[in-house]
Amino acid sequence: MVVLLPAAVAAQSEKERSKVEADILAVMNAQVADWNRGDIDAFMNGYWKSDKLVFASGNDVARGWQTTLDRYKKNYSSREKMGTLSFGDIEINVVSKDAAVVLGSWSLARTNDNPKGKFTLIFRKFKDGWRIVHDHTS
Amino acid sequence: MVVLLPAAVAAQSEKERSKVEADILAVMNAQVADWNRGDIDAFMNGYWKSDKLVFASGNDVARGWQTTLDRYKKNYSSREKMGTLSFGDIEINVVSKDAAVVLGSWSLARTNDNPKGKFTLIFRKFKDGWRIVHDHTS
Repeated sequence: MVVLLPAAVAAQSEKERSKVEADILAVMNAQVADWNRGDIDAFMNGYWKSDKLVFASGNDVARGWQTTLDRYKKNYSSREKMGTLSFGDIEINVVSKDAAVVLGSWSLARTNDNPKGKFTLIFRKFKDGWRIVHDHTS
Repeated sequence: MVVLLPAAVAAQSEKERSKVEADILAVMNAQVADWNRGDIDAFMNGYWKSDKLVFASGNDVARGWQTTLDRYKKNYSSREKMGTLSFGDIEINVVSKDAAVVLGSWSLARTNDNPKGKFTLIFRKFKDGWRIVHDHTS
């Protein structure tokens, strides 16, 4: 489940990496639980609350936490559209003590369709914990 | 053109970051030149030559340098299909001394169409220079 680069291996102990991975998985699991309760505002706690947050999807880039929240609320304007979110195939690559790259799959189980795809997330560690600073979803 | 996080600012001097940015741009500019000469093998020099290279696109993840090369050669099997590549809107976020995240736009000028999209690249620094270790293209 974990892909590591030589530089990361040298920089961090196994114990430290396990802690980072657990912390990041906790953020992502909270996002899934929040989404599946229909709470997009809580889901957004996983993202860096900054104008510099990057959310890339298709040929679009949304900039900033508020814009990303607005985008989610527009695209998932009802509980039915939100469906049931699940993440899978999670691979965490710890790049430094305060940065990690996560590759994974997402899918939404909905009444009439089952959209799915891949994401690459860049997490950074802040005083209040790990947050997504850059999300590229396809 | 450059987005930096507080942690990165603290960790690196302006001069060091400028050097990293120039090195990464040189790799990307070489890729564009190689592509536009019709040389996919040379273009692939920008990627980490490892089985751990990640190339995510749509709902697919290609694993490894050879698989990524094969994918490019299959999808761009003629000079016409390759078209003329250009990159734009490049933003480099230096995460640590040996890691950077690049967001940008790509487009192909071809006779009958003009496909385009966004990419997120994770670069790591190796003994022989900066290489893409993870590419998420949409």
